[in-house]
Amino acid sequence: MTSILPRGVSDASFNQALSEFRAIVGNSAVLNSDEDRQSYIDPYAMGDGKDHDSSAIIAPASTEEVQAIVRAANKYKVALWPVSRGKNLGYGTASPAEAGNVILDLSRMDKILDVNEKYAHCLLEPGVGFYDLFYHLQEKKLPLWMSVPGNSWGSVIGNALDRGIGYTPYGDHCEQICGMEVVMPDGEVIRTGMGAMANSTTWQNYKYGYGPSWDQMFMQSNFGIVTKAGVWLQPEPEMTAKVDLAFAKFEDAEWAIDILADLRRRDVIQHNIVFGTPVRAASTMSQRADWYEGEGAIPDSVCEEMMKKLGLGWWNARISLHGHEGVVKANADIIRKALEPKMGKELEFQFWAKGEPMEKAAQGVPTTMGLNCVNWYGGRGGHLGFSPVLSADGKIAFDYAKKVKSLYQEVGQDYYASFTIGRRHINNVGLILYDRDDETTLNRAKKLIDMLLKEAASRGFAEYRSHISYMDAIGDTYDYGNHALRRLNNKVKAALDPNNIIAPGRNGIGSRK
Amino acid sequence: MTSILPRGVSDASFNQALSEFRAIVGNSAVLNSDEDRQSYIDPYAMGDGKDHDSSAIIAPASTEEVQAIVRAANKYKVALWPVSRGKNLGYGTASPAEAGNVILDLSRMDKILDVNEKYAHCLLEPGVGFYDLFYHLQEKKLPLWMSVPGNSWGSVIGNALDRGIGYTPYGDHCEQICGMEVVMPDGEVIRTGMGAMANSTTWQNYKYGYGPSWDQMFMQSNFGIVTKAGVWLQPEPEMTAKVDLAFAKFEDAEWAIDILADLRRRDVIQHNIVFGTPVRAASTMSQRADWYEGEGAIPDSVCEEMMKKLGLGWWNARISLHGHEGVVKANADIIRKALEPKMGKELEFQFWAKGEPMEKAAQGVPTTMGLNCVNWYGGRGGHLGFSPVLSADGKIAFDYAKKVKSLYQEVGQDYYASFTIGRRHINNVGLILYDRDDETTLNRAKKLIDMLLKEAASRGFAEYRSHISYMDAIGDTYDYGNHALRRLNNKVKAALDPNNIIAPGRNGIGSRK
Repeated sequence: MTSILPRGVSDASFNQALSEFRAIVGNSAVLNSDEDRQSYIDPYAMGDGKDHDSSAIIAPASTEEVQAIVRAANKYKVALWPVSRGKNLGYGTASPAEAGNVILDLSRMDKILDVNEKYAHCLLEPGVGFYDLFYHLQEKKLPLWMSVPGNSWGSVIGNALDRGIGYTPYGDHCEQICGMEVVMPDGEVIRTGMGAMANSTTWQNYKYGYGPSWDQMFMQSNFGIVTKAGVWLQPEPEMTAKVDLAFAKFEDAEWAIDILADLRRRDVIQHNIVFGTPVRAASTMSQRADWYEGEGAIPDSVCEEMMKKLGLGWWNARISLHGHEGVVKANADIIRKALEPKMGKELEFQFWAKGEPMEKAAQGVPTTMGLNCVNWYGGRGGHLGFSPVLSADGKIAFDYAKKVKSLYQEVGQDYYASFTIGRRHINNVGLILYDRDDETTLNRAKKLIDMLLKEAASRGFAEYRSHISYMDAIGDTYDYGNHALRRLNNKVKAALDPNNIIAPGRNGIGSRK
Repeated sequence: MTSILPRGVSDASFNQALSEFRAIVGNSAVLNSDEDRQSYIDPYAMGDGKDHDSSAIIAPASTEEVQAIVRAANKYKVALWPVSRGKNLGYGTASPAEAGNVILDLSRMDKILDVNEKYAHCLLEPGVGFYDLFYHLQEKKLPLWMSVPGNSWGSVIGNALDRGIGYTPYGDHCEQICGMEVVMPDGEVIRTGMGAMANSTTWQNYKYGYGPSWDQMFMQSNFGIVTKAGVWLQPEPEMTAKVDLAFAKFEDAEWAIDILADLRRRDVIQHNIVFGTPVRAASTMSQRADWYEGEGAIPDSVCEEMMKKLGLGWWNARISLHGHEGVVKANADIIRKALEPKMGKELEFQFWAKGEPMEKAAQGVPTTMGLNCVNWYGGRGGHLGFSPVLSADGKIAFDYAKKVKSLYQEVGQDYYASFTIGRRHINNVGLILYDRDDETTLNRAKKLIDMLLKEAASRGFAEYRSHISYMDAIGDTYDYGNHALRRLNNKVKAALDPNNIIAPGRNGIGSRK
């Protein structure tokens, strides 16, 4: 029994489609009971999440099954919402942007097809999770490291396709993708890059192929369904070092970001540096009620207390260094020289030689610790990320942080921000936490998002990633030439997917409103 | 008087088109005399180059003029071949793939629109040459370095769009592009990445924008005309070092490539390493006749003599190091430790502190020295690059080198190769030199190219770049799924450019045969 239908599809037609889907993948891999569909609803949604309910779930086991599904979907005009493992946490998890899509759950396609130690790359299906790959590397004793996001439940490929980020030298996940296999909306299979040569021996070695390069076109898009992708891994270094930085004052952001960005740009620091507020750190190990139960946003004085007890600063960062001993130690010295005079204290680096047991974060070991934060307000916790890109400039970032903190305060929300500092840009993720069943926290979250969207756009900052509920709104802020880029995306979408059966509305492309 | 017409366009219709073009850009910026067209013919072509003659040249001065030209071209179905500065040396220079195209010469659009010292990026028009940008940085005393190709006559943007390569940490030129302005085949202007937000402040800071990312789609393609692009520059380092490596034996390639690739993968070496044969080095400073005047390929014994006189090895490489003093010195030590035991001699590094006069190559200073090679065989010299991508593996590369050397010998051509070693791949450029007026050298060049194409394809190596005469042949080697990627490219081409007016046949897309 399905209580919701794909957009524009009749009950009878949908039943026929489901029969065809069952014939392709087997009865047990097509789900449409209320209970099954409920289990795919975003567990962190504002409210019950039913505004993004699906009409069914299909879980294919092979590229050939994906092709057959896509052909059947075209026949019945049933839109599919492909997810790798459906763990797009804070952005909608497995739920479709358009209610009624059939979720195409690729998590059964979980083969690690190849790992090459010499070249430090692998070829994965989208269902392979960070833990799967990690355990595989451990079991085979391969000296290759991954980069993982703060919550590592998800798919290696899926995270990269959504331009997820990590905090090691391989932390720009989308940049580690090299070569894809993609089922196109007409059911054809293409291979990108060097894989477009049938007997290629360099598919995962060189990204660009000959002519236009498609890999980045299949990210955050709905032009096709990625069924395999190459991922570059980090060769295990001879030495690793780590230092935790706590910047005492809110105002320190201005000079600290400038110094960190310069060190990053010069590759003294080889990874993007996450730089976050005390509530961000505290929420991974405690709940708000442990600190404060009053009305409105948590006062600065309580934050100061939190910082004292947990050994935090107003801004907290971690730097890890990787490489040969001489280089790691030289880079640690450069970082000391740059930061110690301003911080007024000595930095305490820890060093590990190859093979020594070390802290996980520096090594790309999967973790779910970050997810504890959703319990901050108690109840059934939820969270949503608001993620604009800023220039890597201390004054620009600090001015924005000040303003955003005041907006959080205005609505009564505890300020939670991270700035992931790259060579020239910053990915700012403002997390908005709430209790899914508490109207007060939900209403202020919605209000806050609207305020943030306007504030960011007024400063010329656009978002790099978004929750399924805000895809059109964020697409709208990309307004150059009266939304010329969206017209281009929609033109290509129409040419490749005339029935709009792949993820309508993903990142604002092919939206039907 | 035009003696050649655009494909499928009548004389009368073309005259009308030329009148419209003149109305847009002025009489002096539309050229179609035999003499003018001759000056755009590839000066290094095999033979007279007339098989790639143009019907006219238009040189717009602004994005608006490009838009107007594109609209007129659609009206008359006149195909345009855009070139930035037309210096695609060894691959056809300014000449169109399809004879009769009107060359759209963008060299008058030569504004350096912005250089940002803090972020180390700039925004350029396509007519800006490497020398233009270099002199600008010098004049303004900006501590920013470029990466340049071996022959630096060309356009910074144009070289990146063709996936040109340099030999500094910013040597993957296509990867330094961040944000473009593009005139689409329908005359619309789009901006990619963050520039798709009208008031963006991060256009050159972050590449990917929101949704599919177009920058790599406008490279080696004919989906639009790039009229502006952001380019990342290297912040001037505190210290630079350089070492020249000469590997004595031909067989040394196997272990040398493995060591160099491992150092590259671990970022001990921060740039792709060019690794070339003695003729490659000798041809920049001498002619073949200085060494040998016999029949057939130059014998190994003569190469040995050349090596002795010029202090070369069978393979010659240069490594430069960039960064803070401690790191540069630590990396030099690691390189010594990796190479000296195998080479049996001490490596002599040179070091320069910031501000000291230094050798140009390590610093990204433009040069035209490499171009001397075209005079190798005397007469009106020409050259053509054959450029497959290999995996970064010593055995694979050496086996291929051995085979290719034997093919060069078979046809009587002097073996000339460079292997540019990256983290996981190698760009192999086999240069084929000839005397444009000597049928013997031309015939063997043609024969050799066909042999190389087959040899590379049989090993699963595909080309990353090609001469205009070989675009379809190389496109053909990308044959997965019965050329599925080409069908996709052609589908997008047809949707965006239904009249096929932008560069038909570029990299095998939209070819009309």
